[in-house]
Amino acid sequence: MSTSAPSSPLLVVSAHAGDFVWRAAGAIALATARGDRAKVVCLSYGERGESARAWREGKGLAEIKELRRGEAEAAAAELGAEIEFLDAGDYPLRETPELVDRLVRVYREFEPAVVLTHTLADPYNGDHPAAARMALQARVLAQAIGYEAPGEPLGAPPVFFFEPHQPEQCDFKPDVLLDITPVFDRKRKAMECLPAQQHMWDYYTDLAKRRGVQLKRNAGPNLGLPHDTRAEAYVRVYPQTTGELA
Amino acid sequence: MSTSAPSSPLLVVSAHAGDFVWRAAGAIALATARGDRAKVVCLSYGERGESARAWREGKGLAEIKELRRGEAEAAAAELGAEIEFLDAGDYPLRETPELVDRLVRVYREFEPAVVLTHTLADPYNGDHPAAARMALQARVLAQAIGYEAPGEPLGAPPVFFFEPHQPEQCDFKPDVLLDITPVFDRKRKAMECLPAQQHMWDYYTDLAKRRGVQLKRNAGPNLGLPHDTRAEAYVRVYPQTTGELA
Amino acid sequence: MSTSAPSSPLLVVSAHAGDFVWRAAGAIALATARGDRAKVVCLSYGERGESARAWREGKGLAEIKELRRGEAEAAAAELGAEIEFLDAGDYPLRETPELVDRLVRVYREFEPAVVLTHTLADPYNGDHPAAARMALQARVLAQAIGYEAPGEPLGAPPVFFFEPHQPEQCDFKPDVLLDITPVFDRKRKAMECLPAQQHMWDYYTDLAKRRGVQLKRNAGPNLGLPHDTRAEAYVRVYPQTTGELA
Amino acid sequence: MSTSAPSSPLLVVSAHAGDFVWRAAGAIALATARGDRAKVVCLSYGERGESARAWREGKGLAEIKELRRGEAEAAAAELGAEIEFLDAGDYPLRETPELVDRLVRVYREFEPAVVLTHTLADPYNGDHPAAARMALQARVLAQAIGYEAPGEPLGAPPVFFFEPHQPEQCDFKPDVLLDITPVFDRKRKAMECLPAQQHMWDYYTDLAKRRGVQLKRNAGPNLGLPHDTRAEAYVRVYPQTTGELA
Amino acid sequence: MSTSAPSSPLLVVSAHAGDFVWRAAGAIALATARGDRAKVVCLSYGERGESARAWREGKGLAEIKELRRGEAEAAAAELGAEIEFLDAGDYPLRETPELVDRLVRVYREFEPAVVLTHTLADPYNGDHPAAARMALQARVLAQAIGYEAPGEPLGAPPVFFFEPHQPEQCDFKPDVLLDITPVFDRKRKAMECLPAQQHMWDYYTDLAKRRGVQLKRNAGPNLGLPHDTRAEAYVRVYPQTTGELA
Amino acid sequence: MSTSAPSSPLLVVSAHAGDFVWRAAGAIALATARGDRAKVVCLSYGERGESARAWREGKGLAEIKELRRGEAEAAAAELGAEIEFLDAGDYPLRETPELVDRLVRVYREFEPAVVLTHTLADPYNGDHPAAARMALQARVLAQAIGYEAPGEPLGAPPVFFFEPHQPEQCDFKPDVLLDITPVFDRKRKAMECLPAQQHMWDYYTDLAKRRGVQLKRNAGPNLGLPHDTRAEAYVRVYPQTTGELA
Repeated sequence: MSTSAPSSPLLVVSAHAGDFVWRAAGAIALATARGDRAKVVCLSYGERGESARAWREGKGLAEIKELRRGEAEAAAAELGAEIEFLDAGDYPLRETPELVDRLVRVYREFEPAVVLTHTLADPYNGDHPAAARMALQARVLAQAIGYEAPGEPLGAPPVFFFEPHQPEQCDFKPDVLLDITPVFDRKRKAMECLPAQQHMWDYYTDLAKRRGVQLKRNAGPNLGLPHDTRAEAYVRVYPQTTGELA
Repeated sequence: MSTSAPSSPLLVVSAHAGDFVWRAAGAIALATARGDRAKVVCLSYGERGESARAWREGKGLAEIKELRRGEAEAAAAELGAEIEFLDAGDYPLRETPELVDRLVRVYREFEPAVVLTHTLADPYNGDHPAAARMALQARVLAQAIGYEAPGEPLGAPPVFFFEPHQPEQCDFKPDVLLDITPVFDRKRKAMECLPAQQHMWDYYTDLAKRRGVQLKRNAGPNLGLPHDTRAEAYVRVYPQTTGELA
Repeated sequence: MSTSAPSSPLLVVSAHAGDFVWRAAGAIALATARGDRAKVVCLSYGERGESARAWREGKGLAEIKELRRGEAEAAAAELGAEIEFLDAGDYPLRETPELVDRLVRVYREFEPAVVLTHTLADPYNGDHPAAARMALQARVLAQAIGYEAPGEPLGAPPVFFFEPHQPEQCDFKPDVLLDITPVFDRKRKAMECLPAQQHMWDYYTDLAKRRGVQLKRNAGPNLGLPHDTRAEAYVRVYPQTTGELA
Repeated sequence: MSTSAPSSPLLVVSAHAGDFVWRAAGAIALATARGDRAKVVCLSYGERGESARAWREGKGLAEIKELRRGEAEAAAAELGAEIEFLDAGDYPLRETPELVDRLVRVYREFEPAVVLTHTLADPYNGDHPAAARMALQARVLAQAIGYEAPGEPLGAPPVFFFEPHQPEQCDFKPDVLLDITPVFDRKRKAMECLPAQQHMWDYYTDLAKRRGVQLKRNAGPNLGLPHDTRAEAYVRVYPQTTGELA
Repeated sequence: MSTSAPSSPLLVVSAHAGDFVWRAAGAIALATARGDRAKVVCLSYGERGESARAWREGKGLAEIKELRRGEAEAAAAELGAEIEFLDAGDYPLRETPELVDRLVRVYREFEPAVVLTHTLADPYNGDHPAAARMALQARVLAQAIGYEAPGEPLGAPPVFFFEPHQPEQCDFKPDVLLDITPVFDRKRKAMECLPAQQHMWDYYTDLAKRRGVQLKRNAGPNLGLPHDTRAEAYVRVYPQTTGELA
Repeated sequence: MSTSAPSSPLLVVSAHAGDFVWRAAGAIALATARGDRAKVVCLSYGERGESARAWREGKGLAEIKELRRGEAEAAAAELGAEIEFLDAGDYPLRETPELVDRLVRVYREFEPAVVLTHTLADPYNGDHPAAARMALQARVLAQAIGYEAPGEPLGAPPVFFFEPHQPEQCDFKPDVLLDITPVFDRKRKAMECLPAQQHMWDYYTDLAKRRGVQLKRNAGPNLGLPHDTRAEAYVRVYPQTTGELA
């Protein structure tokens, strides 16, 4: 069951334009390297809450959105992923039936085999849990044959929460450590598409190292993992279904 | 990393002689059906706390131990598993450095790729958490090159808690649903090796059905799982390490 | 305090038309067998999210609602309960001040002594927690003398969450095991009023057996409970108030 | 099931000599007022950890034990309860198989219908959780027919944790609020048998008022409970088994 | 970092007009006694849900609001605090973007160094968590330079939850015990500004004593705190940042 | 109360010889830089479980202990701290009354104002929680006037857990972020006293950066903290007692 089907599209639901790069670029690059489709849906550009430098430089709202969009598109291209912007506004990102409905349509059209999104708790950023709640709600609605939207009812793709900035404050206890060593250089390049947040490049490079050390500790020394193993951490939302314990 | 290596020995650490049958026979049968070794270590026979019928029939202690041993051996044989009895006594099963040391030696000799044991909480049975604590402690000790015991330091085999009798009271929130449909008939036959607990046969058959329904719900309708899917539930103790989210 | 008053009306707040049958039919039948009133309020018919077979058979929305209504009415009649449909729509069931206000009016009119509803967490179904939040909010509002609605301010009826389909995933740790043995045949007949979900009949019969085994384990062997004890599990929301520990 | 049988003996397992007075005197007095037996087992006298004043006055160990014993006997007499001292030593109270075995024999002899003890967490006092662990372990052992001790196997008496001094730090979330109004004067008199801790008399009188206000809030205004309702708070360890939700 | 700056304005966000008196008057009086500004924002008057006596006396809505306003103003004056009423309605207090926006403007204008509000859980009162959610959301929005509101982006003032009426039911585990002994008489006088809830005066006086005993226990006997120490309990929401562990 | 007294001795209770360097060197260096005494008590040398390289090089037990002792003494000297080795053995570190008693004597003699130790949960290392349990138990015993050991009864020094290697798996949710920027170079030098674990130097330098970023985020941008802020994370065990919220 958990074997990767011939085609396993990966969907990432992100509150702001840059989130997917710091938190999930490794998973995305692994998917596209395997030949799977990957798609990022940005509910907003993060134009108000996550563009402090641009505001301080005196840029206007439309200009900031365009800037963020361009950066995110470049990063997605680096990772081989598609990207779509719903432009629903941020700070606050408002939960509305209409926005949930748009996500249902994305699920029905894209038919993801795996879904990534934010954690349900984040005391530093209300938009992140709002995005996660909508991603989860839309997934359930897309499964219902009676929900009016084009396409077939969705299956039950597993959902993973990617790592927030302050994991312990967000009740983020990793269930899965994903080995991103083979694609880490692509993650780094994708990060470098976001020049306004240059201090984050090293921060998330360090984090990948730290999670890599933990992956090696959890995998055991006998596997011969390389010294510079890099990893991303995830929380699995629904029970894993499998034919083999491992 | 989570791919099954050519040889993936499965170790089950059980407080009493019968526990492995009700709670993990499916996982054991899947392992031996794949050609892997499986070994059950029973810390006690469950001679005092889980042999009520024999006591009521007036049997003596030695006789009850022999009875329980025979039944457990028959069940293990049905599943293709090895079995070893440490005869450490039950009700209470006492945590001692000597017993932990014996487990360290089992780990070093058997070199398990996967370990199954009880939950750390069980308000109905103090022996179950005691067994789990010793299984976990011995695993860590076996990893240390400085621990004096024959064999090589252990790797980092994942550990799973199998399902207790009253899961919610034991904080048992399943992380993994294991599809045991292909081997369920062998689990049933192994259960039938324990005639004193006949009412449990149907109870755990029903539970396998119920967990099977949940597995189908979590796997999604599109996988075409059969109507009579059977499953066992497990809790994963350490983060999963993997090269692919699925 | 916890003694049953001469009249102890039981109110069940349910997201969809069928929920009360699988999860609370035993409690309802016990109440009506004692001579108490019981009332089920269905916030929706479950027309979109829980009527997959009807949609696959090509039925239309109005027809499906009518079908669900008929089945639920038959099941309620079997249990001796009143039933009311608020037809607020499902998938998603939307939380609105208007719907909460309608529930306040139900509380004020019916004056329940006990309230049953869904759990506050359910990652498989967003309508269930939405119904629970509204049931709890309306109960508090109905207690306020200043809330404008007909009738007297409500007392403080205890609230119980009934059992969800995947209890551990919904943080459902039973506080109360209710002996439904004397009325289980009526629960079975009520389930049989829902022919589209025939596979659930056995599923919830098995669950009643399993909860019955747990009830016997928790009540102790000395009470002489019958072999075929049947039970439903509940979570108590507010502290029990009593004049005697038992 | 939860109806009080003709005889419902109440057993209190207490780490030190005074604990039962502050935390459970109301429950004890209610039991004896109903005509039930009540018995307090003090694992130690609290001679080292809870007798600061006596040590400061220069008293010796034997003298302090005798003093504590006399006070506790007087308080028990006031409540109509039997009392037994196991004199196992405090600060620390050591968990030993022998002490657990003595508790098993108490269970088998006394056949309690209800058990009260400390919480399993208390960062301010290691003896309290040690007493609770032994009380729970002994209860399970006493249920096993194979455990060698005089008497019949124990049933499954419900267990309640009584309220610690700093409840929130001990994860004490009350499940049950017990109305002790009719016997509060006896609790006060029992407290007054412990003159060395006079500041506690008012503290626990205030707490009884505070829990009484909460009891009234949870019971509802319509019950007509008196203004000066007094209560004790408890946590229920195992699910309640009942034939009626209330 | 945690040293009190020359000016440390204290902001209290309260659902109803009286909440700040029972729960945070000590903290407010300490702040104003130090020479800091303190401001209370009442989202509603508590006119429907917390004015039972006035409704029973037949007063009208406008009259009740006026009454509550007068009492709260008197209490704030006693404490030396400013007070502002947003009159957003209670039972239920509705979360709206507009109300959150008004709070953002308060944050930007007042520039609090410390924020106090309700807990996020309260099963007895839906307005309290609603107020807390809005207080937290507005704080994050006020930090964003891109959020359109007058004033400078907010810093990161620590937030504390004050104590609810039934703390354990609200997951209230105190992180901070605040010594309010020097200002307790002012808290008492502020409470006496609310004559309709006279029974609360003693209740919260008793609670202050009880929290004071706990403060002394946690501070240690060597500090020489007075016998009649009075305290308020708080939960810290974000990690403390400091240059010294103490 | 939380103001630093003229003399505030800092006590660190560590399972193995190196733990205090990675996890608490910043706190230690801050203390000694303020002129306070700091003392490290190592319950073992970590000779079996944390000296893998030495074992692989074929060194003997006595030699390894000596090696570890020398390194730890050098690191302590770098930080200006005293250090004492109890040589109780590791893997496993056994909890015994005798070892706890030795810790009581340390508390009574050193009279710490602040205590640092391991977390109570660590699924990767059983010695760490064992050390923490003993450190907490000994602190409570040292407070009792009746406990036979030289010196005066201890006050109530606050206890903080320092950060484990895999914080989320150890339920480590930071309560306190300690600014160690002024002494970070001394921490680095202390780490460099442990040449066998060179890969840890960068790992814990990176962690200090990451915690520094979080400290700045939680302290707010307006404080003007430097770009290269360094921090250590701690969990506070008992409620903070204070005269001012900040």
